[in-house]
Amino acid sequence: MKATILYGPRDIRVETRDDPKILKPTDAILRLAASCVCGSDLWPYRGAQPAEKPTPMGHEYCGVVEEVGSAVKNVKKGQFVIGSFATSDNTCPHCRHGYQSSCVNREFMLGAQAPLLRVSNADGTLVATRETPDARYIPSLLAVSDVLGTGWFAADAASVKPGSTVVVVGDGAVGLLGVLSAKQMGAERIIAMSRHAKRQQLAREFGATDIVTERGEEGAARIRELTKGIGADSVLECVGTQESMWQAIDATRPGGHTSYVGVPHGVSLDGAKLFFTHVHLHGGPAPVRRYLPQLIDLVLSDRIDPGKVFDLTLPLEKVAEAYKAMDERRAIKALLTV
Amino acid sequence: MKATILYGPRDIRVETRDDPKILKPTDAILRLAASCVCGSDLWPYRGAQPAEKPTPMGHEYCGVVEEVGSAVKNVKKGQFVIGSFATSDNTCPHCRHGYQSSCVNREFMLGAQAPLLRVSNADGTLVATRETPDARYIPSLLAVSDVLGTGWFAADAASVKPGSTVVVVGDGAVGLLGVLSAKQMGAERIIAMSRHAKRQQLAREFGATDIVTERGEEGAARIRELTKGIGADSVLECVGTQESMWQAIDATRPGGHTSYVGVPHGVSLDGAKLFFTHVHLHGGPAPVRRYLPQLIDLVLSDRIDPGKVFDLTLPLEKVAEAYKAMDERRAIKALLTV
Repeated sequence: MKATILYGPRDIRVETRDDPKILKPTDAILRLAASCVCGSDLWPYRGAQPAEKPTPMGHEYCGVVEEVGSAVKNVKKGQFVIGSFATSDNTCPHCRHGYQSSCVNREFMLGAQAPLLRVSNADGTLVATRETPDARYIPSLLAVSDVLGTGWFAADAASVKPGSTVVVVGDGAVGLLGVLSAKQMGAERIIAMSRHAKRQQLAREFGATDIVTERGEEGAARIRELTKGIGADSVLECVGTQESMWQAIDATRPGGHTSYVGVPHGVSLDGAKLFFTHVHLHGGPAPVRRYLPQLIDLVLSDRIDPGKVFDLTLPLEKVAEAYKAMDERRAIKALLTV
Repeated sequence: MKATILYGPRDIRVETRDDPKILKPTDAILRLAASCVCGSDLWPYRGAQPAEKPTPMGHEYCGVVEEVGSAVKNVKKGQFVIGSFATSDNTCPHCRHGYQSSCVNREFMLGAQAPLLRVSNADGTLVATRETPDARYIPSLLAVSDVLGTGWFAADAASVKPGSTVVVVGDGAVGLLGVLSAKQMGAERIIAMSRHAKRQQLAREFGATDIVTERGEEGAARIRELTKGIGADSVLECVGTQESMWQAIDATRPGGHTSYVGVPHGVSLDGAKLFFTHVHLHGGPAPVRRYLPQLIDLVLSDRIDPGKVFDLTLPLEKVAEAYKAMDERRAIKALLTV
């Protein structure tokens, strides 16, 4: 099959690799309905997270089960399934607490920018739809697999409730879907921090009531101004830099909640400074598995359309252009036909 | 009056100062029932937090109202009252959210190691008892003013619930009262981390079910061992150093809660490391005012006896010996008769 491999900074190639095989009795092989590029793929692409060897890329996926290992019981050949970037047995104590992305048997997915994919811990990872969904749902179901699941966790981890005032830091797909999630959870006011016209527009479509273009300390000051000096109840940090992290914390009211869902890069939090902010801080790799059934249902009942984050579609062979367009912020998120 | 003044590292003196006066119409003057030394007083005493000028010490207090300013309505002369180390108007948005120690009019108390004390924001800070309590309750009411209020916040901020497995890092008065608080909140298992026989004994009296003597990474590993590899639901960090902070975070299960209630000294949290722990982190200066009515009631109805943390009583004139005994860990907490 054709597969996407990262060789080094900005050196992304499509090459022929062996089709994936069942390696463990708990594995499944999927034929993917489509694939896509994630904002988090840009960290290694930019060299901010060194890739030591040629790395198969891609961790967002949905598609049809081609084959299952001998121990797999919950999904079978021919079913349409959605999974998460972190595989999980869904039975260990961490899974039972809803933190499947810290499963004791967790494996992080690789290689989903390809037509075929091996998924470990298939029983605990994959959720099947009742029937094969119409093709028009594929972009949204692909979004559920990671960027919506992560935006939803961001809103949940920031304790968004009916009537909340919410701020979203970051206008990538996760941030935009954090806006959608906050809206679904009943937030009254949703302030999106963005300088990019197209993304501002989509944020408004997803439920943002205000747009703030200032950043860093100025951005946090502007949020306090908009909230009568109080700060927001819930702030979703969807970037992962030192500046965005403090922008989020400083925009939160004392006793409010800051969530962070992108792997922090070069972030260091001063304990004494954090102490006096009085915020609740929670985040980590999103336990998307916890939310899959609910989010799939919201998509298939036409109550949400997270697939709108895909504003560029390319064939797998043009994956390099997909990365480039996202790196240059010309595209929010690229869908790859496989 | 006699007052306790810190001149520099380990240079603590009792000297004659003017009696405090009403400075603002919202002030009250109290005649204190007793005073005491706090673990947090040891930071400046040890020079870890430089005192630039002679500083009046002490921030824990209860006693009888001597005089009130013209704007004070909720308390009156002759009433017995308890307050917090952070004064608050109890009406601003942060106070209404239960974070009175981030009140927009907050002032941190100073000068309570003396017979008379000026308290700002008297209406929002002081809580009066129905009648003047019997003298035997004074140590416990003094504990309510800070160390119990802070230990209670530690348990609350770590989301202790009936059935929880709780770890307490730190065997000072706050940590020990964190044990008592967790017990009151229905924790099933309470693991106190302590190497000190007398403190271990008091931890057991307050409800600890296990004692762990290991520290740092070894301590966290021991907690995982005791919890079948899972980690604790709630960990109360009651020290404030880099080692104790990571000991607490590493002892918490993914999705569990770590609270921290002592001002962090030299603490820096690596964002990426914190991210993958999946913990909830919450802390800050304890909003003791939120809990005062409940805690006073628990004391006066004889359901808790937090005053047991006082294992040394000295007259104010011997305050230097009180600091020394606590600094050398000969005393858990010293009560000063004034």
